[in-house]
Amino acid sequence: MEDLNDALRRALGDGAVLTGDDAAPWSQDWTGVYTWTPVCVVRPRSTAEVSAVMKIAYDARVPVVPVSGNTGLAGGTVGEGAIMLSLDRMNKVREIRAEARLAVVEAGGILASLHEAALAQGLVFPLTFGARGSCMVGGFLSTNAGGSNVLRYGNTRDLVLGIEVVMADGQVMNLMSELHKDNSGLNLKHLMIGAEGTLGVITQAVLKLVPKPAATATAMVAVSSLDEALSLLHALQAVTGGAVEAFEYMPQDYLAEYARYAPQSRPVFDTEYAHCIMVEVATTAPRDATPGPDGEVPLVGLLEGVLGDMLERGAVLDAVVAQNESQRAEIWARREVAGTLAVSHKPLVNNDIAVPVDKVSVFLDRMDKRLAELDPGANVLVVSHLGDGNVHYTVWPENTDPACCDAIMEVVEDEVLSLGGSFSAEHGIGLTKRPSMARRKDKVAVAAMKAIKAALDPRGILNPGKVFPD
Amino acid sequence: MEDLNDALRRALGDGAVLTGDDAAPWSQDWTGVYTWTPVCVVRPRSTAEVSAVMKIAYDARVPVVPVSGNTGLAGGTVGEGAIMLSLDRMNKVREIRAEARLAVVEAGGILASLHEAALAQGLVFPLTFGARGSCMVGGFLSTNAGGSNVLRYGNTRDLVLGIEVVMADGQVMNLMSELHKDNSGLNLKHLMIGAEGTLGVITQAVLKLVPKPAATATAMVAVSSLDEALSLLHALQAVTGGAVEAFEYMPQDYLAEYARYAPQSRPVFDTEYAHCIMVEVATTAPRDATPGPDGEVPLVGLLEGVLGDMLERGAVLDAVVAQNESQRAEIWARREVAGTLAVSHKPLVNNDIAVPVDKVSVFLDRMDKRLAELDPGANVLVVSHLGDGNVHYTVWPENTDPACCDAIMEVVEDEVLSLGGSFSAEHGIGLTKRPSMARRKDKVAVAAMKAIKAALDPRGILNPGKVFPD
Repeated sequence: MEDLNDALRRALGDGAVLTGDDAAPWSQDWTGVYTWTPVCVVRPRSTAEVSAVMKIAYDARVPVVPVSGNTGLAGGTVGEGAIMLSLDRMNKVREIRAEARLAVVEAGGILASLHEAALAQGLVFPLTFGARGSCMVGGFLSTNAGGSNVLRYGNTRDLVLGIEVVMADGQVMNLMSELHKDNSGLNLKHLMIGAEGTLGVITQAVLKLVPKPAATATAMVAVSSLDEALSLLHALQAVTGGAVEAFEYMPQDYLAEYARYAPQSRPVFDTEYAHCIMVEVATTAPRDATPGPDGEVPLVGLLEGVLGDMLERGAVLDAVVAQNESQRAEIWARREVAGTLAVSHKPLVNNDIAVPVDKVSVFLDRMDKRLAELDPGANVLVVSHLGDGNVHYTVWPENTDPACCDAIMEVVEDEVLSLGGSFSAEHGIGLTKRPSMARRKDKVAVAAMKAIKAALDPRGILNPGKVFPD
Repeated sequence: MEDLNDALRRALGDGAVLTGDDAAPWSQDWTGVYTWTPVCVVRPRSTAEVSAVMKIAYDARVPVVPVSGNTGLAGGTVGEGAIMLSLDRMNKVREIRAEARLAVVEAGGILASLHEAALAQGLVFPLTFGARGSCMVGGFLSTNAGGSNVLRYGNTRDLVLGIEVVMADGQVMNLMSELHKDNSGLNLKHLMIGAEGTLGVITQAVLKLVPKPAATATAMVAVSSLDEALSLLHALQAVTGGAVEAFEYMPQDYLAEYARYAPQSRPVFDTEYAHCIMVEVATTAPRDATPGPDGEVPLVGLLEGVLGDMLERGAVLDAVVAQNESQRAEIWARREVAGTLAVSHKPLVNNDIAVPVDKVSVFLDRMDKRLAELDPGANVLVVSHLGDGNVHYTVWPENTDPACCDAIMEVVEDEVLSLGGSFSAEHGIGLTKRPSMARRKDKVAVAAMKAIKAALDPRGILNPGKVFPD
């Protein structure tokens, strides 16, 4: 391995190749579940340097694990015996073109920095989730990250116009399109997005931006049931013309866990309610921003109108509408700490599942029964992007026997699949969900995925041991 | 080949395998540019029968060309010596689930039938273009068709939740997801959509539906320049909160050609204007439908307000707003006949290109000069989905020497690529654009595409000779 490190140092310079203690930050993942010992960490500064690293690794047949913010939740960056290829020094927002509503960014750019750069020009990059202060472009592209605004703006892949990818042998594939229509052959962009670094290393991207909303209204709402929560969603979409940006379910147990984590925080309501929803609506149409010259109803009035009607008929039990940006931030903080809460107890059985939007309550009811049979003392942390059917269902088992944990995982998968759902909604497969891929994914699809992997990475050096089942 | 046809007849029944004159409707494409002689035409009634056909073809190593409505514009269904696999008998809308806003459809369903079925439940499948009365699901998925509503709803791929695909060897891949989030391995759905039948045969799909607009406003607008057309688009998006559904450019020459084609039609304006735009805005928010109880401005009022402001400062020269559904239909008819107009003269140099939205006028200006050098007597038919940068640029050369036609094509590609554009926006590659793929597509991307093709269709039987350059 000394020869390998020497070759990498010659290509990138001494300071760009880390070993031993210097490599420690890249030797564990954010969840604390995985630790490993890489051969070295390389920190290229350009696409040409990423290409040089891949050529060296390809010739030497040494595994390469691409890593950016390292905030994944599925062990996708575990790199035992691998070169960790960190994109963190390629962190520039290269260009924001306001008229064309796009940003050209490097793979090591931090999501929050991109948010700020866009906002400075009156635009928004609408992808957002708890890790936004440390996750990077390459990671959210490679995992096709979801988050809280998918309901309105889609998943990461829906926000990408173009990408640049360094292939297994170091060749650079230029798909840096700025176009909204481009049917020139197979869609390799969508193949690379969400591939978790197993088919190539994403080094740059062209991302879509949207206008900054002229008005936003945010509320916490207690509803009488999850079915009524869906009625609330449909009513808000109808009255605002589809302007719901976030619709997040937090049951009482979640809020109680948050109160333990942040004891200084104020409770949302004086009363404890079983079902709480965080809702945000936003619009770019200036006529919705303030009472209009013709007496138009402002956005917050539309929200309050719907809540008032549902309060009257008992479907909404209580509601708090944010009166200013600080109250809005307080509402969001409660939701965004979900990832931290989930990994705060060990062991955990971590499930990021999706079911059709109208099946979330069925799934939760069935799981209550099934879990009571398997491990009556288990605790469950549930938080859900209810608007898109994605449920983060974390079990903290009382019975920590690995066989029991596996059984819980399998029961979750059974119920999810019986409802036409997916065992991985937005976190990806990585290491954690490989057994689920083997058990649950359509066999013909798995064979096709493996054939594509072999075709594009014939030496199997790109993030080996992830995504594809044996 | 008699053995082959016998095997197919045994699998599907006599009436499902056509040869000789019976195969004639599947022996030419809609443009009239291509004719061919297939081995036979098979008309399976189910996924199982499609699978049986593929197994027979795989064993016999005979090419299979999937075909549905046969309305493509790039020669994608040319099937010399191939089994034509027609999906036309698999034409059911299997299910519309209004609450989940989705439709489950078979590959031979006609787009207009899907429109009707959705509308009957107060919903819309927003993909639309001129061929909607005869094009089928399998074709618009396999070409990732675009059309006039891409600006608001995206391309076909953005409207698809799940698909079912029969692979080259007859295995059935089930990706019939109804989910909005599903990160379980490589995204094979997006790989198959737009693959033009070269990787598998799409047999079913789950498609997204959207609520029927509560109000629609449609107009023809004469603008002083293409730059002012973009100002109009941005102003309308701002005031309606992004409700522009169609924004179609028709220059004076296009309208003159339409008048020759439909001599009974009325001219849009009494005066001839160089630059006309067809615009449609629509909203689901009922408050925009009619003057509201608080005196809200109805949608048509918003449109007229913007047009009035721009008329005052000379950016808009004239405008006609549809007063009823029949006037709206008249406006759309003018645009939807574009495909028929383009192929009404032969030979033609047919270009379906895309450039960044703000570069359309640059492209057209440059082409005026270049074309005058190459073939001063050439006529040009231009019509453009201006809102997404897609231009249909059809040249009817005076100099019909194939070398001159090739030179025109190459000049178009030169100008498109110098502006960061694509030589194929929404029609795909088929046979027609294979030379452009060879000349213009990123070489690393082409190599990756070919590797994937070889991995998923190792015997090369699926729509051979299309898409991939030699």
